[in-house]
This record gives sequence, structure tokens and C-alpha cells, in this order.
Amino acid sequence: MANVDPKRIDALDAYFRACNYLSVGQIYLRSNPLLKEPLKPEHIKKRLLGHWGTSPGLNFIYAHLNRLIQDTKAKMIYLTGPGHGGPALRANVYLEGCMTETYPDLTQDLSGIEKLMKDFSHPGGVPSHVSPPTPGSIHEGGELGYSLVHAYGAILDNPELIAVCVVGDGEAETGPLATSWQSNKFINPKRDGAVLPILHLNGYKISGPTVFGRMPDTKIEQFFKGCGYQPRFIEGDDPKSLHPVLWKTLDWAYAEIRKKQSEPFDGNPVEWPMIVMRTPKGWTGPKEVDGKKIEGTFRSHQVPLSDVIEKKDHLEILENWMKSYKPQELFDAAGKPNSNILSIVPPKELRMGSTPHANGGLLLKELTIPDTADYEVKVPSPGSVIAEATRVLGKLVRDIMKENKDNFRVFCPDETNSNRFNHVFEVTGRTYLGEIFDSDDDLSHEGRVMEVLSEHLCQGWLEGYLLTGRHGIFPCYEAFALIVDSMLNQHGKWLKACQELPWRKPIASLNYLLTSHAWRQDHNGYSHQGPGFIESVMQKKCSIARIYLPPDANCLLEVGKHCLKSKNYINLIISGKQPMPQWLNMKQAKEHCTKGASIWDWASNDNGHPDIIMAAAGDIPTLETLAAISILRKKFPDLKIRMVNVVDLFTLMPHSRHPHGFDEETFASLFGTETPVIFAFHGHPRVIHELTYKRSYPHRFHVRGYIEEGTTTTPFDMVVCNEMSRFHLAVEALHHLPQMKSVAGDFITECTQKLDDHKVYIYEHGEDIPEVRNWKWEA
Amino acid sequence: MANVDPKRIDALDAYFRACNYLSVGQIYLRSNPLLKEPLKPEHIKKRLLGHWGTSPGLNFIYAHLNRLIQDTKAKMIYLTGPGHGGPALRANVYLEGCMTETYPDLTQDLSGIEKLMKDFSHPGGVPSHVSPPTPGSIHEGGELGYSLVHAYGAILDNPELIAVCVVGDGEAETGPLATSWQSNKFINPKRDGAVLPILHLNGYKISGPTVFGRMPDTKIEQFFKGCGYQPRFIEGDDPKSLHPVLWKTLDWAYAEIRKKQSEPFDGNPVEWPMIVMRTPKGWTGPKEVDGKKIEGTFRSHQVPLSDVIEKKDHLEILENWMKSYKPQELFDAAGKPNSNILSIVPPKELRMGSTPHANGGLLLKELTIPDTADYEVKVPSPGSVIAEATRVLGKLVRDIMKENKDNFRVFCPDETNSNRFNHVFEVTGRTYLGEIFDSDDDLSHEGRVMEVLSEHLCQGWLEGYLLTGRHGIFPCYEAFALIVDSMLNQHGKWLKACQELPWRKPIASLNYLLTSHAWRQDHNGYSHQGPGFIESVMQKKCSIARIYLPPDANCLLEVGKHCLKSKNYINLIISGKQPMPQWLNMKQAKEHCTKGASIWDWASNDNGHPDIIMAAAGDIPTLETLAAISILRKKFPDLKIRMVNVVDLFTLMPHSRHPHGFDEETFASLFGTETPVIFAFHGHPRVIHELTYKRSYPHRFHVRGYIEEGTTTTPFDMVVCNEMSRFHLAVEALHHLPQMKSVAGDFITECTQKLDDHKVYIYEHGEDIPEVRNWKWEA
Repeated sequence: MANVDPKRIDALDAYFRACNYLSVGQIYLRSNPLLKEPLKPEHIKKRLLGHWGTSPGLNFIYAHLNRLIQDTKAKMIYLTGPGHGGPALRANVYLEGCMTETYPDLTQDLSGIEKLMKDFSHPGGVPSHVSPPTPGSIHEGGELGYSLVHAYGAILDNPELIAVCVVGDGEAETGPLATSWQSNKFINPKRDGAVLPILHLNGYKISGPTVFGRMPDTKIEQFFKGCGYQPRFIEGDDPKSLHPVLWKTLDWAYAEIRKKQSEPFDGNPVEWPMIVMRTPKGWTGPKEVDGKKIEGTFRSHQVPLSDVIEKKDHLEILENWMKSYKPQELFDAAGKPNSNILSIVPPKELRMGSTPHANGGLLLKELTIPDTADYEVKVPSPGSVIAEATRVLGKLVRDIMKENKDNFRVFCPDETNSNRFNHVFEVTGRTYLGEIFDSDDDLSHEGRVMEVLSEHLCQGWLEGYLLTGRHGIFPCYEAFALIVDSMLNQHGKWLKACQELPWRKPIASLNYLLTSHAWRQDHNGYSHQGPGFIESVMQKKCSIARIYLPPDANCLLEVGKHCLKSKNYINLIISGKQPMPQWLNMKQAKEHCTKGASIWDWASNDNGHPDIIMAAAGDIPTLETLAAISILRKKFPDLKIRMVNVVDLFTLMPHSRHPHGFDEETFASLFGTETPVIFAFHGHPRVIHELTYKRSYPHRFHVRGYIEEGTTTTPFDMVVCNEMSRFHLAVEALHHLPQMKSVAGDFITECTQKLDDHKVYIYEHGEDIPEVRNWKWEA
Repeated sequence: MANVDPKRIDALDAYFRACNYLSVGQIYLRSNPLLKEPLKPEHIKKRLLGHWGTSPGLNFIYAHLNRLIQDTKAKMIYLTGPGHGGPALRANVYLEGCMTETYPDLTQDLSGIEKLMKDFSHPGGVPSHVSPPTPGSIHEGGELGYSLVHAYGAILDNPELIAVCVVGDGEAETGPLATSWQSNKFINPKRDGAVLPILHLNGYKISGPTVFGRMPDTKIEQFFKGCGYQPRFIEGDDPKSLHPVLWKTLDWAYAEIRKKQSEPFDGNPVEWPMIVMRTPKGWTGPKEVDGKKIEGTFRSHQVPLSDVIEKKDHLEILENWMKSYKPQELFDAAGKPNSNILSIVPPKELRMGSTPHANGGLLLKELTIPDTADYEVKVPSPGSVIAEATRVLGKLVRDIMKENKDNFRVFCPDETNSNRFNHVFEVTGRTYLGEIFDSDDDLSHEGRVMEVLSEHLCQGWLEGYLLTGRHGIFPCYEAFALIVDSMLNQHGKWLKACQELPWRKPIASLNYLLTSHAWRQDHNGYSHQGPGFIESVMQKKCSIARIYLPPDANCLLEVGKHCLKSKNYINLIISGKQPMPQWLNMKQAKEHCTKGASIWDWASNDNGHPDIIMAAAGDIPTLETLAAISILRKKFPDLKIRMVNVVDLFTLMPHSRHPHGFDEETFASLFGTETPVIFAFHGHPRVIHELTYKRSYPHRFHVRGYIEEGTTTTPFDMVVCNEMSRFHLAVEALHHLPQMKSVAGDFITECTQKLDDHKVYIYEHGEDIPEVRNWKWEA
């Protein structure tokens, strides 16, 4: 590091002014980018849609980080928390040269500047916040709250990296951000990189003041010390006097980080540095317009002067504002940034705009995954063996963690054991910093199982980890996955946007393993039951979304391996954790999962001509369907029943709509074209109707699934309450077989009686009727 | 208040022991409730499913609050944050007598105790966390993170109420809880009640330690001082010595609350008291079993001894444990709690188990809502007038706020102005405590517009406000409503469960106004576009879910009024905020909204015999559909087109599945039975397919909607990218009219050319083509 040097301060200020100039230009101009002509209405964009408020602060920090990188050769990544910081980040990566390298038409000359400005927040262009098209970014500034958790995810197992995360004071009010501060308790200074949080207080959101912005420094200091940071404050509105302060503050923070990383690690959480920076909203912009204060108020949030086309005096204010940055000193006649500015840019390989950590696919190493055959649950005949599917997958994941030490983590809201993933603790521990007591289990300062009671943190850490080129899995209670519905949504949008940018290399898929699912939350009750995440994933683009419902442990192994190897998807795997009959051996499971859905011949007696098709997707639906088939076949041996099991939900969709969708012929080979289908489904029945409405005679699909019924009860009563029990399925089947009409009545009476008896029995005995508990598949 | 009195301490301890005894009994026993016989396996439940860990701490606090209520006559409500605190709360409200008053068979005698125990976490019984069946509760302990925000919502405009909120240290790790601490900045001590947060640190979650549990007191103190509280600590594992400490600490906290409420209010945020209580997890339970530490560790989270049926020594430990509470001293021979215990119960009307604030419907006052006619947008002819729908509704809401001063709030993530609800600021302000600067807008210490950049806080405050018997509305950017998907889910579950409990009186509906919607997030881009909340609401039970898509301002007024008057629903209203043509006058709007969907005769020329039906749900779909109709009718005057507009989405569902669903006849009167329908929809097309798949020939519904395309562009390009533009709709219509085959080709070429030209034009000019910008409806 170097002492504060007036010449470099001068260059820093020029760089800062250039960024601010380019930021304003992006918001307003479609031509005349360097104001070589007097500014006229025709130079102005028709719709003024960008955001100015946060940009100057972001520029100020970026400039100084460049200086720090020059002096330290540190590998850094910049996460932009404040919303609508697009103009700033685009300006910086443009001056660095990264923009031109990524988009050859955004040259460092007049035509490049003009296009840089015009494309911003413009049809055919880019959004006003940081987004996938921005080089150097792994974090979209659209939905707020996730910058800090992404930063922490990025530095896990990434000891070289410093993630500088600018947190906006608006964003700081969100729940996910508020709990992200606690991530420091999970960072091992010897193994992970470091996050340098910079809380940027400009005081206002869209129109109101911010909570942190109006807290006195004493309170903010207490808050962050309480969170376990060393906070330092910088405040001001005069760039000249603030330059040396930020210079020194960053030097201090950097030195602290290196100190923490190099001194002996005592196992306790580290007090990392952080910075609180107060500068005015819309800093260096117009002070006042039409008698109203602009700089330092919410009025500079978006476009501080919005009538520049209509109002001559406003146009003049804009021109003076832009000229206040002295563009003629910053760019030469051809539009190239001058050498003073370029002197601030770090060496090519260290520029934040081109860090490979922000294009994680560049760094992605393939996972080493053992052969699933080694974990096979031996199934001599269907239903003859009981196993807990997630416990079996846990063994595979254990060995993946052993083979891919610095490259794979499990993220889970304190449910690793509860979700029966406990085998992973044979090779690693729960990530924990602090004293470990005798009464603790599986805690480790070096553990790679990230447990915290926050689905937001699990999801956000995992996203940051994946986006920087690593792999992971998120086992979660099914119902509570909905907590991160919106994060799933935004990550899906990120992936979709990246698909359209060839320079963004594929990253590992985001893998959810939803267990402790609706059908076996009979003990925890209604609040813990909810298969709605299926619909959340279904809303994603078909190029990204994958949903799997493996019916048993061997299928879960196959699906799990497939998902962990895949790239750029959101994979939703749903599997129960409870002891369940196993149906397929490994060979059968591989075949079945490769097809995505197939006829289970051993459960069928239709010889290609079924009277009825009984289909299932999900482990409990499979169980009930097989039980229904056994009831029907025992009672009505002449009835021709076909059993179809669906693992890959999107096979049901037409091939034209999803790459996994079956073509008409394949679909018909399973489901026929006119035969009634009784479909037992893990989720809401609507999902199957939506997937099949384009198929031949969609009315013939009679779907049973979770209809938001059932609370604290028994496992079997859950399927009874939701009308998906074996008896319901059998009755429904008969109902659609006119030839059975004469016998159906008695059978229905019998089934109804059984269901009534069951209610009495379970309340009396607290467990399911023996007929159900002891049921075993027999063809 | 009274000094610590050894006799009352003795009674408190007896009460505490009784609660603990009943808590353990609920987890284990199905008979022999007072251990009059030696404990045998047949007395034990078959499945042991409850949770012990948090219960004793909850009992300890509840007992002492009873004492405080006796001494102060304060009106209090108890919110149970920790998960699975069911046994504790059920024990307390049972001892208070509230349980028997609510459920006459849960008598204070042997048979009542037995049933109390047996019903817990048992088929046909109640969940292991606090849930709607628990008297005195407004907060479900299922999904964690919302206790504190509910507590704050409950006390808004509720000056008499003190909400005591026990926050678990697991729950404290969640994002929503982490930001809930900041709610203190929105509480006006002269107008609102008070929250007394008690952070209960028992150190463990399911299996790992907690973040707060392992933080040293110094850090915790800094954290809460930083958040603006006065924290006090109590810690121990000996009830006897802890009783006087909690007594005095609660006296201190109560005195501080009353002091803050009575001293002059200077406008600044108040430093309310809070308590941090460290007691062991599974306190007073078995210390050690099979050589493993139980009390004070994660092993007492759920059922500390799970093999009591199988293992004789475990059964013995259980018996000794239960007897350690000395049940024979606590209950008389008939099972009635003794007078010592009952001496701790507050006066009948002050018991927390029977506070009307926990059954808000009892306190609900009907809203006074002005006649919507007073706000009518005059529409001389369809499309002749431009208005911003949400701004018009804002006027109605302004006057509702004027008429219902203490009874209605707006909750919004800093978007009240952005969502054009600005008229409300004519009668109230943004709730704000602290110094107000000249540059601030519409801030007020007395304001009732709750703005914070956290959808979680908005939703949670509103839920707390509604559950305690008041009214409100939550205007939100459409895409970011998904942030609270899981909270919606849990509130929907709460409402559904309450419908089955006649003693729970109806509360005001939860009203969402989603605006700044997908189709007009052309400037903010892809991250801001997402109509998925429709699907979230559709997952709810039909008895609860309502979805409205008013096509213009007058319809929005009607829908808004209807929703604000309704009870026990989740109402989703989606309406744009941008200037849009208006279609219906007030009379027409009333008729149209009352029907839920109707034929717009002025846009139709079918005389009851349409060749094609053009349907729309949503404001932008309505605009594009009318434009498509005008194109088609101009080009092909002989074509018979019917226009159907759908406001109430659930009218499309069969009546058997939703109370608003049209019967077959009504449905056919709009949509025919065989005529092709081109349906333009606000959300994902799948939604319409799912709603209509049971209708006659569902294949004839050709739906266009949001298909996850479009980013920063123009409004019209959004519909182009998503293939829902007027040209797409017109082409699709022709495509399904075989008689038009000969002319369709030329028309398609023309439309394709227009769409190509449009792309060139918008990139060049930054705005939509004049043909679209200047389009006006003409029949």
C-alpha cells in the first residue's frame, strides 16, 4: 500500500468525475455524448428512466477500490446492493476496458460512448440496475436484499477473493439483508476469503428516509459491533476532502483483513472490518431545482430533472451539471478516456469488471461423483425392502464431499439430521466458529455443512457459491422452501438472461432436495404441509426448470447424480425421508429415470390393452396407487390395469413446450389416447391438468393430490383427508369404468366403511389401522 | 405493582410446575394423566411427536406475566415465537380456565386433563406448535420468523395493549425476524400500544447451536442498544432463584413502558425495554440419559426420551421426571388445579387466553366506506378518457382513512407515491419517528401509511393489525409480492383453520393491490416482471382465495370497495398505475364487477352467434384485445366477434370448485360451448388453462399471457415479446377460423412486417410506434 498521493488523488477524482459524467449521460443522452455541441432537446432520450441517486456513491467506492487493487494486487469482486446502480457499474467497467472486451461495439471512442449511453434503460438495451449483461457482476440490483448473502457465498472456499459489498440503506431494511450480517460467524479466515461490507447511507429510498440513514452513528456503531464487526465511518459531501479519507479507510480495512487472515486462528468468529459511508443521495448532482432541494434528498432517486425536453431552463441545468465534471478534461477529442483516468485502472487481470469469479463458469471444475451402483438399495422384489431414501442419497453426497473438498457444500436450515442426510457428518461437520462444547454434535471450524435457521441465507449463500463456480445442494423442508420463492424467481431470471449472453459460461445447477414433505408432515400439522414450490419452479422458463419426483431410494440416487452433474438449471427434487417400501433395483431405476416416466410392468396386467391406467408421481402417490391396484386386482381380477410412474414431471408437457416433454407417440405409448387415467400426484392436482391439457382427451385425466387438507394426524389419514388414499383411487377408477357399474356400489360402500372405521381407530390408538401399516405389495 | 412476595413466589412456582407437568403429559400420556397408577407402557402414546425444548421457558414467562397482570391490570397478549411451543401455551390457557370455556370437554378435572394430553400432537387433535385452536393466540408457531412483526402489527392504534413477544433464538436467525427489531422506529407511544420483546436464548435449534445463543452478552447488549432498545438480561437454571429476578425484571420493563407512554413525546423513537432470558433448553427435564446430556442441549428439542415404551429404565426416568413436579400437590383428587395455582390466574377479563385482541373479529368495527360513485371517472364513451386507475382508488382510500381514523392503515414498501396512491397523503402521512427535515415529504409522527423497504414487515404488520380486528391494504409492486409468498401461505392456512373454529370470529380480509405490474415494468426490466403471485393465491383453499383483475379505474373502485368490506378472504387485486384508456362508466362497472365477467356489447358484433370470442382478464390484455378487435373488424367487417371481459378470475372455475365459479349455463352464455376463444391474460397462460380444463372443449381456449419474456423496452414491446400484442391476438383468431384461411396469409404477412418495423422504430426513437401510441378504440 502507498501513502495518500496528491497526484493519484487528482487522478482518482478525474476518474470519479468521468464515471459520474457517464452515469448522467446514460440517463439522459442519446446523442452528443461529450457535449461537443450545445445541448438540445433532440439529444435527449424520449423516455427518461434511469436512476441517479445511488450512482455517485458507487462510483466513488469503485474508483478507490481500483487504487487499492493497484497497490495490493488483491483479487476483488464488487457487489452492488443498492437498487438501480446500473449507470455507475456500466461506467466503471467501460473505463476499465472490460465493456469493450465483452461487447466489441462499446468502444472507447465517441461512437462507443454514444451507444453506452443510448443502450441504458432503453428499448433493446439494458436495465437501470446491475444485471447479467454487466461484466463483473454476480448480483442483480433488481429485487433488493441479497447482496451481502451473495458476497458471503462467493468467498466460501475462495481464500484469495475479497468481496466488496456495497449495501444500500434501503436494502438494509429488508429481512434477508438484516440477517445476512450474521454470516460473519460462518467464515473461516484460513479457508475462506473475506467480505468487506460498505453500508452506503444516502438517507433516502424512493420517497421516504431510511431506517439506518436516520440512526445516529452511535447506534449504528453499537449495532455493528454487536453483529461482530469493526465499523469505521466516513462522511462528507466534498469529494476533494473525502478522497484521502476513503483512501486511508480502505487501507485500514484491507490491512485488517490481511491481518485476520494471517494471524493464528483461534476458532472464534473474526471481527472483520466494515465501513459505513454517508454521502448525499444524488451527490454532485443539481443542488436545487425550482426551489426544491435535490442533492441529498429523495428527489434525486431517479431522474432529478425530468422535464429537460420541455423546459429550457432545466436543459440548461442539465448541461451545466454535466459540464461541471469537465468532460473535455476527461476524454480526448476522439472520445478516449485520458491517461490520468486510465492510470487508475488496475492491471488487466485484476480489473473487477473481468474477474473470473464474476463469471463462475470459467472456474467451474466438474464434480467427481462416485458410481451410484455402490449405494444401491438391494430390492429382490418390488416392495420387499424398506429404506429411507434421503439417508441413502446422504451417503452419495458424503462421498461427493470427500472427493470434492473445496468445491461442494450443503446448505440447510438446521435440518441435515432431521432430513436424514446425517451420513455427510462422517466426512465433514456443521460450519461453526466459536468454542465447541461436549454437548455439541458434529460442529467443526472446518465443516462444509452450512446450517442456519434462515432459508434466505441458505439460498443466498448457495447462489453466491454457484455463481462463482462451485457446486452445492439445498435440502429443505418442502413447505418452507416457499420462503425463498422470490429468490428462486430472481435466480431463474438471472440464469435465463445469462443463456442469452454467450460470454457467460454455464454454472452448476441450483439443486433443491425438498423432503419432510406435505404427506409426511402429519405430526407437525397443517402449517408444515405445502407442495406449492412445484408451481414456483413451473413458472420458470422451460430452458431452466426441472422437477423430479423419484418414487424410491435408487431412483433418488439416479436423479440426484443427474442433477448434481447438470448445468444452468434449477432442479427440484422431492423425496420423503421416512422408511418406505422400495420398488426398483438400480438397473430398473436407471432405466426408469432415463426415460423420465415408464410403465411398471410388474404392477400391470393390461398386456397393452388397459381398461384403466393408474399413474403416480411422487413417493406417497406411488405407494397409494400400488395399494389401490392390489385392492382392485384382488377384487376384480379381470380388470386390466396399467401402472405408469412419472419421475420427471415435465415429460407430461408437450415436447414443443419443454425439452423433456414426450412427443405424442411416446406419451400415447404410456397413457393411451382415450383410456381413463387415475393420476395420484404429490402436489396440487391443478399441476397435472395444466401439464396435460394439450394431450388427447385431457378430461380423462382424473387427478388426486394435495388439496390443502389434513393437519396433525397419521400418515395414512393425510391421504384420506386429501382424498388420495388407495380406497379413493380404487373407487375413482371404478367410477370411470362403465362396465363395472353393477359391482361398483358394493365396493364403494365397503371402502367408505373402511375409511369411517379408520377415523375411529386412529383417534383411539394414535396410529394407522393395521391393514394399512402391514400392507405389502403383492401382484 | 408489588414487592417480591415469598408466598406468591411459591404460588408462581407451583403454577410453573403445573404447566411443565401438563406440557410433559401432553407429549407422552394418553391415560393415567395424574400418575395415580404407576406408569406403564399402555399409558404412553403410540407415536411420541411433541416438543419439549422450549416449553418450560415459555411457561416460566407466562406464569410471571400472569402475576404482572394481577398487579397492574394491564391488557396483554402473548405471542409465542419459538417453534413447537404448543404444550406450554395449551397448559397455560387450560389452567387459566380459558380452554374449558372454549372447548367444554376440556374440563378442569381428570377427564379434561386426559383429553388435553391425548389431543396434543395426536390424530384428530392439535399440532405441537401454537395454532388457531389455541385460545389467546394470533400467531402460529409453525413457520418461524414472524412473531415480532405480528406483535408490532397488533399494537398499532391499540394504545391499551401490551404485546409480549417471546422470540426464540432459532427464530432470531431468520430474515423477517432480524429486520422486525427495527419496528420500534414506527411506534408512537401516544397512539400505539407497546411490545415487550423477550429474546429467549436456550442455545440450540433442532441440532445445532444458535447464533444469538452463542453470542456473548456484551455483543447482544450492543446489538439491541444499536437497534434502539434498553436490554436487560436474566440467566439461570434454578427456578427458585430466577423467580424473583424475572419478577423484578418484568416490573422494570412494565414501569419503563408506562413511563415512555406517559412522558411527553418528543417525536423521536422511544427506547423501549426488552428482556434477554437465558435458560436451558428442556429446562427442568432429564439431565442425562444413557450417558448423554439432555437438559441444556439440542437433545431435549423434541422428545427427550423416545423409547419409553420399549425401555423400562426410560419409562422410569419419565415417571420420576413427571413426579419431580409433584402433581399430587398441584391437582386435587378430582384433577382440579389447587387454589395456590389458581391464585396466579388474572381476573377473568384480563387472562391472556381470553383477550379479545387474540380473536380480533370480536373487536372488528365495520369500515365506513364512501359511495364509489363520488370518485367515478366520467367515461362518455369507451376509450374516450385516460386515467390512472390506482390514483383514482387512492382517493377512495384517502377518504376511508379520513372516516376510519384508528382502524385502517396502508402498508407499503416505500412505493405509495410510485404506486400513485399519493392522495392518501392529503389526510395522513408516512409513519415516522424522528426529526423531520425540510427536504422530507409527507412524514408524520401520527401518519398511518407504514412505509418500509421490507415486504415482510409490511405483510407481517398488516397481518398483526388484521388479526387484532382492524382493516388495511397492502399496495405492492407485483413482482415483489412473491417475497411474502410464504407468509401469504401461512396466513391463508390460519384463515382456513379458523373457518373450522366457530369461536374464532371473522376478521377483515387481507387485501393486496398489486400494481407496477409485469406489463408496465418495461423500464425496470426483467427482474421487476413477474405475475406469479396469482398462482400463489390460487393454491389457497377456495373458501379463502379471491383474485380480481379490474380493467379500468371504475372497476377498480368497485372491486376495491368490495374487498375492503369483505371478511376472512385473501383478496388479490391487480391493476396498473399508468395512464390508460377507460372503458366503463360507474353504472357499467358496477354491473360488470357484480357479474364477475360479462360480454362487452359495445365491442362485439356477434348478435349471439360469434365466429370467435376474444376474451381478456387484466388491464393490458383488455387494451390489446380491444385493439385486436378493432383491427379485425376494420379488415374483416363480416367477422362476428364477441368480446368477454373477466374481472373475477374464479368465475372461470366450475361452480363446484369455487363459490364464484360460473355454473355451466352462465359460462356457456359468455364463452359458448364450441366457439374458439382467444384469451389474453395478465398472468401466465397456464392459469387460464387450469381454470377452464373442466369446461366444454377446453382445447378451444387459446391463451396468451406473460411467458417470461421482455426486459427493458417499451410498453408495447412487452406485449410483443410475450406474443400477446394486438397483432398476435388478431393472427391467432384468424388461425382458428377455417373460413378465413384464404385471406389469413396476407394479413399475417402484414402483421409480421408491422412487428419487425416496430423493433426498428423503438430502438431508433426510444418509444412505441405512433400507430400504437395514438390508437383509440373505434367500434
